Amino acid sequence: MASTAGQVIKCKAAVAWEAGKPLVIEEVEVAPPQAMEVRLKILYTSLCHTDVYFWEAKGQNPLFPRIFGHEAGGIVESVGEGVTDLAPGDHVLPVFTGECKDCAHCKSKESNMCTLLRINTDRGVMISDGKSRFSINGKPIYHFVGTSTFSEYTVVHVGCVAKINPEAPLDKVCVLSCGISTGLGATLNVAKPPKGSSVAVFGLGAVGLAAAEGARIAGASRIIGVDMNPNRFSAATEFGVTEFVNPKDHDKPVQEVLAEMTGGGVDRSVECTGNVDAMISAFECVHDGWGVAVLVGVPHKDAVFKTHPMNFLNERTLKGTFFGNYMPRSDLPNVVEKYMNKELELEKFITHEVPFAEINKAFDYMHRGEGLRCVIRMDA
Amino acid sequence: MASTAGQVIKCKAAVAWEAGKPLVIEEVEVAPPQAMEVRLKILYTSLCHTDVYFWEAKGQNPLFPRIFGHEAGGIVESVGEGVTDLAPGDHVLPVFTGECKDCAHCKSKESNMCTLLRINTDRGVMISDGKSRFSINGKPIYHFVGTSTFSEYTVVHVGCVAKINPEAPLDKVCVLSCGISTGLGATLNVAKPPKGSSVAVFGLGAVGLAAAEGARIAGASRIIGVDMNPNRFSAATEFGVTEFVNPKDHDKPVQEVLAEMTGGGVDRSVECTGNVDAMISAFECVHDGWGVAVLVGVPHKDAVFKTHPMNFLNERTLKGTFFGNYMPRSDLPNVVEKYMNKELELEKFITHEVPFAEINKAFDYMHRGEGLRCVIRMDA
Ligand SMILES: NC(=O)c1ccc[n+]([C@@H]2O[C@H](COP(=O)([O-])OP(=O)(O)OC[C@H]3O[C@@H](n4cnc5c(N)ncnc54)[C@H](O)[C@@H]3O)[C@@H](O)[C@H]2O)c1
Ligand SMILES: NC(=O)c1ccc[n+]([C@@H]2O[C@H](COP(=O)([O-])OP(=O)(O)OC[C@H]3O[C@@H](n4cnc5c(N)ncnc54)[C@H](O)[C@@H]3O)[C@@H](O)[C@H]2O)c1
Ligand SMILES: [Zn+2]
Ligand SMILES: [Zn+2]
Repeated sequence: MASTAGQVIKCKAAVAWEAGKPLVIEEVEVAPPQAMEVRLKILYTSLCHTDVYFWEAKGQNPLFPRIFGHEAGGIVESVGEGVTDLAPGDHVLPVFTGECKDCAHCKSKESNMCTLLRINTDRGVMISDGKSRFSINGKPIYHFVGTSTFSEYTVVHVGCVAKINPEAPLDKVCVLSCGISTGLGATLNVAKPPKGSSVAVFGLGAVGLAAAEGARIAGASRIIGVDMNPNRFSAATEFGVTEFVNPKDHDKPVQEVLAEMTGGGVDRSVECTGNVDAMISAFECVHDGWGVAVLVGVPHKDAVFKTHPMNFLNERTLKGTFFGNYMPRSDLPNVVEKYMNKELELEKFITHEVPFAEINKAFDYMHRGEGLRCVIRMDA
Repeated sequence: MASTAGQVIKCKAAVAWEAGKPLVIEEVEVAPPQAMEVRLKILYTSLCHTDVYFWEAKGQNPLFPRIFGHEAGGIVESVGEGVTDLAPGDHVLPVFTGECKDCAHCKSKESNMCTLLRINTDRGVMISDGKSRFSINGKPIYHFVGTSTFSEYTVVHVGCVAKINPEAPLDKVCVLSCGISTGLGATLNVAKPPKGSSVAVFGLGAVGLAAAEGARIAGASRIIGVDMNPNRFSAATEFGVTEFVNPKDHDKPVQEVLAEMTGGGVDRSVECTGNVDAMISAFECVHDGWGVAVLVGVPHKDAVFKTHPMNFLNERTLKGTFFGNYMPRSDLPNVVEKYMNKELELEKFITHEVPFAEINKAFDYMHRGEGLRCVIRMDA
């Protein structure tokens, strides 16, 4: 055990004091991990839309002060009581959703929606005692989705930590904690395009490009990128996207455009926009008889998915996925191996890098829609 | 070849002269089969809702005079040019949808929606020459869904004929031509309930009971029948249904009732009603993480399927099926074998039997909602 084990650690964290206000680097106290918890030293973290979304707190319950961050790579500093499969020094990825290995979901081969550790964006505390492990002068600072990786040290439930190959470069594989795995898994685990098939990807942000990367890995022969923002098209070529469709360039619904391009519809589609119209198009554009559409984007709370039931009767399948159907502890180590054996390319997702002190720049890049992932180096 | 081969055959057929008027047994002339067609001697036929629906012709294009009928068992009388896999004397089931073995659907393992021979209820003629093979005094009588089995002899495209075990009793297996296979296949081929799982069946008509029979064969531990008509419940017990829910007995939506009964939702559901509200309930009642819902019922043309997209994101799957995803020529012979080896019980579906001369009685039973299948004996 490190000499810090069992001690409160003082370290730097980027604290969001108020909705939408720049984060402030503060000295925080991080309590030791309790039963079934681990304390991690975060080395790299990246910024995802979900952080920005809850930091802006338009629409959701504002919960401040809070430490955001959920895509990261780090090293176990110490473990709490009862933790047996992790030890100090292990290289890990913390994940916003967990795997308790004990509930009906964890026992089902088909689900990764752990009853105990499923994402809960409203909770700002640890599940064991309902308390925060972060404080400043005794005042608690809330957690975010059980990870709070915008801190040099953080405390996470053991079920939300994937132990990975220690040879894997954490500054690259940190992006596998959320969006990239989500898009990749949506294609590889859920849509499962056969080799040589056609795949439409709706939305060419990081998640959609990861879905396209999955289609490339699966050996799809046509990968059709659909986005309303033509700026997304040039970068997408690197991710295997072979054709582009901007719905704004056509008078007819985009599902009809795709059906014409492909002799009746694509074999698979993956929706990564969060827009309900795109969800409907993504479903209706798959071929009858065998087409499978997968929804990934998080919809508006009042959104309604509408279609004629004959579209199902004609043997189309519609599924949704959460975190690409990956079980964080069981599956993420294998995704890291895909990167290690050069099947999966991660470098192209990482378009920016900033030192921790400049974390607010990562927010600016995202606001301006510049690039895909900005990796934040904690040691700098 | 029979001595009748190549000749016009005069025989009895039940002709629908006008929408909704009782059928009239007439002497019709049945022309010899053309290229890729076969002429069948029908021994048994049964009545399905679809016959009644198009006979009533409320809403669809009326096409009269017409010979209805599409669930049947018979024997090949003669074959047209180019037919190599059927010969006179073969025992067969004609089917309303076909399998050309050559189109993209037939080549896909996932689809049974043959491009060439997919059901077309508006067509009253043979596809090769756009003509009818039935006539009375030179006046053509229209075909129905390529089968027209309410006739002692009929002409069918070879792609719509399943060659079956000649030992199989045609008076029983004739019901496998349509509804029973549809429900059975919806469960066995599409919903695929794991052994020990819970299955909800919406609609306990012949199709829904066949879906329940599929769940029984698959080893489901709970089979929950949902119907608004409580008269359907007593018979359903024979088909393995273990529990009943009448949506009218509850103040809350039936999907909530089912979720409470099953700790969060059923593992699989199969909708066999044609009612869009039942389709929505059947989808929303499956468990998150792994639930699969399958739509079978044919919806109203203006129906809209509506749900919140989060229901998909929470890892529910929605599929539809046509004819239970069975390929008529490749798969029906095996369904007949399931009956032969006593895995599948068909007797309980056959609640009535009438001689051909009394075919209109079968329509009366169906109108009164009495029983499930009425088998019509052609030789009597
Ligand atoms: N299911 C999960 O587990 C999970 C995990 C992470 C992210 N997500 C969701 O995935 C979605 C994509 O995330 P991202 O980070 O790539 O977002 P992003 O904003 O970077 O990309 C979304 C893209 O969709 C495009 N778009 C929007 N409406 C469209 C329409 N109607 N038609 C075509 N294109 C349209 C936008 O122009 C944009 O390029 C978001 O909804 C996010 O919440 C889901
Ligand atoms: N997809 C295919 O290939 C295929 C093939 C054959 C039949 N079908 C369709 O399957 C459906 C069932 O056929 P069937 O012959 O068993 O019909 P049926 O009329 O005998 O049975 C339907 C049952 O559904 C019940 N029902 C109606 N609305 C309901 C609701 N909202 N909630 C619960 N129960 C409800 C009715 O009370 C009835 O008992 C029909 O729509 C038919 O067109 C489809
Ligand atoms: Zn769990
Ligand atoms: Zn075909």
